[in-house]
Parts: sequence; C-alpha cells; structure tokens
Amino acid sequence: MTRLDQQFAFLAEAEKLKSVTRATPIHDASRPENSGEHSWSLALYALVLADHAPEGVDVNRAIRMLLLHDLVEIDVGDVPIHSQNGAAHGAPEIAAAEARAAERIFGLLPQEQGAALLDLWHEFEANESADAIFAKSLDRVQPVLLNHLSGGGSWVEYDVQFGQLESRVGQKIARGLPGVWDWVKAKVEPWFAARDRV
Amino acid sequence: MTRLDQQFAFLAEAEKLKSVTRATPIHDASRPENSGEHSWSLALYALVLADHAPEGVDVNRAIRMLLLHDLVEIDVGDVPIHSQNGAAHGAPEIAAAEARAAERIFGLLPQEQGAALLDLWHEFEANESADAIFAKSLDRVQPVLLNHLSGGGSWVEYDVQFGQLESRVGQKIARGLPGVWDWVKAKVEPWFAARDRV
Repeated sequence: MTRLDQQFAFLAEAEKLKSVTRATPIHDASRPENSGEHSWSLALYALVLADHAPEGVDVNRAIRMLLLHDLVEIDVGDVPIHSQNGAAHGAPEIAAAEARAAERIFGLLPQEQGAALLDLWHEFEANESADAIFAKSLDRVQPVLLNHLSGGGSWVEYDVQFGQLESRVGQKIARGLPGVWDWVKAKVEPWFAARDRV
Repeated sequence: MTRLDQQFAFLAEAEKLKSVTRATPIHDASRPENSGEHSWSLALYALVLADHAPEGVDVNRAIRMLLLHDLVEIDVGDVPIHSQNGAAHGAPEIAAAEARAAERIFGLLPQEQGAALLDLWHEFEANESADAIFAKSLDRVQPVLLNHLSGGGSWVEYDVQFGQLESRVGQKIARGLPGVWDWVKAKVEPWFAARDRV
C-alpha cells in the first residue's frame, strides 16, 4: 500500500460518519443531525468564537481535534448526553469501545500520521489541555443552541430539566468559555421556564 | 447587539447549510450529501493530505477556507459542476449572486471579523493564492471519490464522460495536487471504461 492508498482508505472510512445520527435535530427540526455535519459546525464555532478562548489556546489545534473527535462513532454510535438520565455518556464500557474504535480508524493511516491523530483524539478525550478544554466546551454549546433553534429537540425527548442542563453541560461550557455560558444560559433558560409553567 | 449576539446570529444562520443538498450521494448512495457535511469532509481531507500540498501552503488557512467556502449556498444553492453540460458552474450571474450572499452572511458578524472572513472567501473563489489552489483542489477531489464509492452518483445523473471529468475536474485537481490526481485517475478510470463497454 502506498501512502495515498492508506490516506484515501481512511478518508473513505470517515465518510461513514455522515450516517451516524445524533439526538439533536437540525435547525428546522426536519431531521436528526448527523455526526459529520455536527463536526463541521463545531469547527466553525471554534473559528468564530476564537476571541473568547482563554489565552494560550491554539485555535487551529482545537479545530483539528473537532474535525476528528467523533470519528469513533462510526463503530460505537453517538451516545446522547441526556440519555439514561445522563449516565450513559462517559460510561467506562463506552470509553473503552471508543478507544478501540480510535485504534482501528486512525490505524488505517500511515503509521506516524495515524499515531499523531490518535494522540490528538486522546488529548481531546482527556479534556485537560487548554486546547481540549476549549474544544470540549464547543462540543457542549452547539447542541444547546440547536435544541433551542429547533424548539426543544433532545430536551423534550429526554425530559431534561434546566438544573440537569446546567450540571451536565453548563458547567463544562463555563470551564472553557465562561462568558459564552452566561450568554447561552440567558438565551435558553426562558424556554425551560415557559415549559415548566404549563 | 453584543459581539456574542452577532457571532451566534451568524452561527445560527450557518446551520442552514445542512439543508442544502448536492448532486453527489453519500458513501452508501442512501441520500444526497449536504453542503455542511461536505465542508467537514473537505477540512478533513486538508488535514490528512497536507503532506501532498505544495511547499508554502498554510494548511490551517486552507482548512478555514474550506469550512466557510460553501456558506453562500444558503442563499444560492449548490450548482453541480456537471449540470447544464458543465456550463452552469462558474457562470457570471451565479458568481454575482454568491458574492451578494457572502456580503449578507459574513455581514452578520462583528464588522472586522466579518470583513476578514469575507476576504478569505474571496481569496478562495479567486483561486490564485497557494492556499486557495490547494483548497479548491480538495473541493474537486472529494466528490470524485464519493461518486466512485457510491457507484457512480452524479456521473450517472449527468451522463459524464471520462474526458469531461478530466477537463472539468482533473485539471483543477492536478493544479493543486498533481500526485493526487494521478492516484484518483487510476482509481476511477476503470469505472468509466466498464460503463462505456456496455
């Protein structure tokens, strides 16, 4: 196999992410979002919201992480953050399956390139470096705004309370993008208040 | 309007790109690709094929161009490269409509940020800088591989001949990624040969 054979094998495999559906609907609620287009949104978020990133964040590295971060879902599927009352996302058996998927998928690439991208994926998952914390915050904020745009989305499906949104999502957004969570909170809290009045 | 109000207005508008469909089907031919997920694929192509870029190309800038390049389709739609026997794509009235769309969409952002991204979009469209030529090549190569993966795709719909693919697409790929076009050509030419034998 040549280098291009390996790179195109990886890129052909990556196309399958467009068939992995998420709990969040797209903007007009016409269908579920898929993880490929979700990854595009996140990279665009990183580009546009770069000036809110804490000092020291390398936005180009964060964009690369976001382009790659969901590829493991080709094997494992998307685990919605509010499913099983918030317990499924981040469960150890899911994390282990995702790590195996990452080995397989990045293993399609030339050895040193695959190893570098696998490292980047692990860095994102560990959520400890400044770049990863920024990228993870974006991965939490975009679905909130998409649920809001589409009239409730997965908040309706999983009967999410505002306190749950704040603990499962808000605190993580605030960690990487504190000013942004304040803005988002003010935007979405009235939706929950209106629903809970009914 | 605060800076975040403007940035989130832009990001909410950008979500609509997920509803713009293209002539190329996704990998398993189950549905048309949309321009949002297509933009993700191209950014991933840039990341993975970076080592084939001519010297001097800034891959991070190319990724930014690719994340943005299709946003104008929110107003104008996708104009398939093989439609109207290759004449529609790049027609002056389409280019003018796209330029108006770019003004409107990037105009949602804070002034200096919108102006910078509008410049980047014009640079991509002009296809003269090293970064733009690399990015445009990727925009030409991914649909070829997707048509091949999905069993013909828009080549069937528009009855494309191999010579037309070579002139409309191959020469543009070769300009930014010469070694890559040789690989792709060897991969897809047998599909045309097999079809034309029937």
